[in-house]
Amino acid sequence: MSSLFEQHRATLESALAAIRERGFWSAYPEVPSGKIYGENAKQEGLASYQSHLNGDFELPGHPEQRRVGAEVSPFLGAAEGALGIRYPAADAELLVSHSQAAAAAWANAGIETRVGICLEILARLNRRSFEMANAVMHTSGQAFPMAFQAGGPHAQDRGLEALAYAWDEMQRIPASARWVKPQGKAGDIIMDKHWRIVPRGVSLLIGCQTFPTWNSYSGLFANLATGNTVIAKPHPAAILPMALTVLVAREVLAEQGLPPDVVLLAAEEPGSGQAKVFAEHPGIAQIDYTGSGEFGQWLRRHAATPLVYTEEAGVNSIVIAATDNFDAMCQNIAFSLSLYSGQMCTAPQNLFVPRDGILAGGERKSFDEVAAGIAAAVDALLADPARAAAVAGAIANPDTLARVDAARSLGRIVRDSAPLAGAGPARTATPLIVAVDAAATDAYEAERFGPIALVVAVADAAEGVRRAADLARRKGAITAALYDTSEAGILDAADAFAEAGVNLSVNLLGGIYVNQSAAYSDFHVTGANPAGNACFADSAFVANRFRVAMWRQPAPTSA
Amino acid sequence: MSSLFEQHRATLESALAAIRERGFWSAYPEVPSGKIYGENAKQEGLASYQSHLNGDFELPGHPEQRRVGAEVSPFLGAAEGALGIRYPAADAELLVSHSQAAAAAWANAGIETRVGICLEILARLNRRSFEMANAVMHTSGQAFPMAFQAGGPHAQDRGLEALAYAWDEMQRIPASARWVKPQGKAGDIIMDKHWRIVPRGVSLLIGCQTFPTWNSYSGLFANLATGNTVIAKPHPAAILPMALTVLVAREVLAEQGLPPDVVLLAAEEPGSGQAKVFAEHPGIAQIDYTGSGEFGQWLRRHAATPLVYTEEAGVNSIVIAATDNFDAMCQNIAFSLSLYSGQMCTAPQNLFVPRDGILAGGERKSFDEVAAGIAAAVDALLADPARAAAVAGAIANPDTLARVDAARSLGRIVRDSAPLAGAGPARTATPLIVAVDAAATDAYEAERFGPIALVVAVADAAEGVRRAADLARRKGAITAALYDTSEAGILDAADAFAEAGVNLSVNLLGGIYVNQSAAYSDFHVTGANPAGNACFADSAFVANRFRVAMWRQPAPTSA
Repeated sequence: MSSLFEQHRATLESALAAIRERGFWSAYPEVPSGKIYGENAKQEGLASYQSHLNGDFELPGHPEQRRVGAEVSPFLGAAEGALGIRYPAADAELLVSHSQAAAAAWANAGIETRVGICLEILARLNRRSFEMANAVMHTSGQAFPMAFQAGGPHAQDRGLEALAYAWDEMQRIPASARWVKPQGKAGDIIMDKHWRIVPRGVSLLIGCQTFPTWNSYSGLFANLATGNTVIAKPHPAAILPMALTVLVAREVLAEQGLPPDVVLLAAEEPGSGQAKVFAEHPGIAQIDYTGSGEFGQWLRRHAATPLVYTEEAGVNSIVIAATDNFDAMCQNIAFSLSLYSGQMCTAPQNLFVPRDGILAGGERKSFDEVAAGIAAAVDALLADPARAAAVAGAIANPDTLARVDAARSLGRIVRDSAPLAGAGPARTATPLIVAVDAAATDAYEAERFGPIALVVAVADAAEGVRRAADLARRKGAITAALYDTSEAGILDAADAFAEAGVNLSVNLLGGIYVNQSAAYSDFHVTGANPAGNACFADSAFVANRFRVAMWRQPAPTSA
Repeated sequence: MSSLFEQHRATLESALAAIRERGFWSAYPEVPSGKIYGENAKQEGLASYQSHLNGDFELPGHPEQRRVGAEVSPFLGAAEGALGIRYPAADAELLVSHSQAAAAAWANAGIETRVGICLEILARLNRRSFEMANAVMHTSGQAFPMAFQAGGPHAQDRGLEALAYAWDEMQRIPASARWVKPQGKAGDIIMDKHWRIVPRGVSLLIGCQTFPTWNSYSGLFANLATGNTVIAKPHPAAILPMALTVLVAREVLAEQGLPPDVVLLAAEEPGSGQAKVFAEHPGIAQIDYTGSGEFGQWLRRHAATPLVYTEEAGVNSIVIAATDNFDAMCQNIAFSLSLYSGQMCTAPQNLFVPRDGILAGGERKSFDEVAAGIAAAVDALLADPARAAAVAGAIANPDTLARVDAARSLGRIVRDSAPLAGAGPARTATPLIVAVDAAATDAYEAERFGPIALVVAVADAAEGVRRAADLARRKGAITAALYDTSEAGILDAADAFAEAGVNLSVNLLGGIYVNQSAAYSDFHVTGANPAGNACFADSAFVANRFRVAMWRQPAPTSA
């Protein structure tokens, strides 16, 4: 039964080394190249994706009381874009009971078997990365390049990362030990002790629309490795990526003679509110959640289980104090604002700029010049329609367009938002950039999810850092960025953002962006501010997903 | 500043090895011997204890708005027993603000400095073990031998164990790494990343009367090591042990040039309800709690912070299926029932015995013979007044005597409770043993804290295991024990109790008891049933007491 483990052991060991060293490493190539994934992988992946459209998605043996599904591609418009995929669906009660029925076999399968199966699931998901890319693209609105990377290999890397942490944690518990306590003349007391991993139980995985796999794989694989069964409840607008994941997982489980119901899909139509129903079910032992802070707070307060791991929302900031390379800075920020149209939890919203401008390569740039420089860089980045489409993708949720509209009145428009040129029926919007003063806290202290940026005039960079860190502490933030040429300024900002529980990127230029978070190296979300109570991934993310039980007895006395 | 760390490094390294191997190890000798602790240690410890009586307990520099203290020795009666110690006390608001004021210096002191200080505190506490033994004895009612061991070296070992886990966890986070991502022809992206430990903040430590240090040191040292400041709020009837601990901690902190307010004492009079006031204070970031399930539930639901680590209460059981040595079994159980008069969270309450008796060394013993055998073993154990006093100690809380009284009517009295012979003014009670049928669930499913045992008649041992495990799952349990001669029976019970999250001891005879839980080897409380949500100690106990924040920047380009 542990042959899958042996087959993939080297991958696990490399991941274990990577999470210790935290340099660059990846198990799953991020380049969507035929040389890596097979000459016809791209066409075959597309064909596989298309084969799911307008039909029943089959999950053999999955509990089913009805069929649901109402996904619409943000790229194709309401009329043409309906994916028409019908997923098996069942009530929470039935899914929980199936999950519970599969629990004992999974718990007793043993650590190596479970981890081997997880590694095989990841390997097969990797081979289906092109199919997954299309699935993620047409549910999240991510452009194809991002949908491939974030939905495929990067998500797989996050899954492997969590798996490595779970393995590492479980390996720290010996299966048995002999305990020999000297008692002087009374001789030794000798006990044989045996420990076992006790999983928590049925775990609920509540996904989001924008990163349906990337935000779910850490919890999925942490739970599976530690012996918990999983009910994946994807966002109703982005079911297909997790349905594919569940399909692959169930295939591997069945092949290994284990109950496929270890992994179940809780598909639902928009508005049916299944997340609450599951969360209130006493059979749910743990919850992983990505989504709004409002529902996150409800979960943390009202879920039947206190074991809730969340990534919620926040307001990310960039503070601009000074730079040696104004153009490259503006280009870098422009890319961060445009990438997936600001729909990343790591995307910056607020740009704090000193009212009297900054020093840029020894030259003074006024506040307006800084704002205009970034706006111009956005224009340049999105000038070519093909490139614009590949960067900005589509808007996942129509509400985001309304939010962009409303944001126009927040202050002085530096750069207006518009649909992408030549985007056809796709729902698109380029970044809106609005200038406000630091006094206009209502404008920039609220989270405005989507392609909305506020350039906030502050007295100096120190005020910007203070306001950004304070905002992070109160409302949450996942990323912060700083442009500064002063070592002291950088170190002060590092202190301030660390205290606010925000990861900080300094002076990013070229091909690395504040939005990016690399598995095995960047802890994603600190868990130390309202943007989330957990982190992808660290010991705390996995160590409480199982408990340890012992039995002990006196050692047999030798003859 | 790290010389304390170097001085104690070998102790830490031994503890790290011990928590991995989980065999017997101890840093602090449990034998109250003059050869180990100094020829006059016993007398000096007593004198030091006595010097605190009827006077002001001084904590130099500690915030103080008034003096409080109303401890009474359970050994000396209400009239003579008043310790008369007056502790400095202050409102929650003031204590939290002092704790917060000390936070930055402690967080910035660095891991080695903090851990070195913790190791020095433990070493000094160890040297004061005789003084501590008297303090624990005269607040908890533990007899001197137990007060020395549990209040002194065993508590210190639990503290060191948690410290080792915290160190291990923090060591897994590198301070920095270079991240080099190949980009093919575009060259490498090279980032320098820096990580730091971010403490949670002010941590509240709510102690209990029965084990004022043993149940507090895991949380205390886990928090201090990870950079949190601590407010220790001992039980109002058992302040002195933690006051001594706080005194030692503050001395070491001050000597090392750090703010003594890193560790504060929240002394209070009985009934003043400070635990709630602190728990609702938004400045409290974490809570460690030992006490009733009722207040535990309140804390888990209503504390301002969700980060609450609890040891609550439960109903522990022994299932008697068969034994090879009836007399030794009865003696072992008798000791477990008598030790500290059943006031241990690990003490058994319910003894499940088959209605038609058991096989004991090939001979049939009826249900009544088993019950009578245990009762007779209790009588024999407590026959000698000096030995009885040394085993049973005194009753900490007068309510426990009322509970013993009420329990007499639960069923047929097999052995009545009585004051210990020759105990003078001490509040004492020997074990009450009552026989009931399994149908009398009201009698044995409630926690009856104190020297109260119920012998429960079941159809067979399997029913006993099933009932005991089910009770553990619903009401919590910290220990379970089994006497059985069948390998299959033992393994079935191991499965059942593991699933219920209870540690199981099998066939204990001689000098090892189900009540005993050894640091570095026995995880105390599993965190997997209502008896507590955390464990002394494991990764999960420490890993979420800090978070990690990063800052990253492009590596300097070489010339």
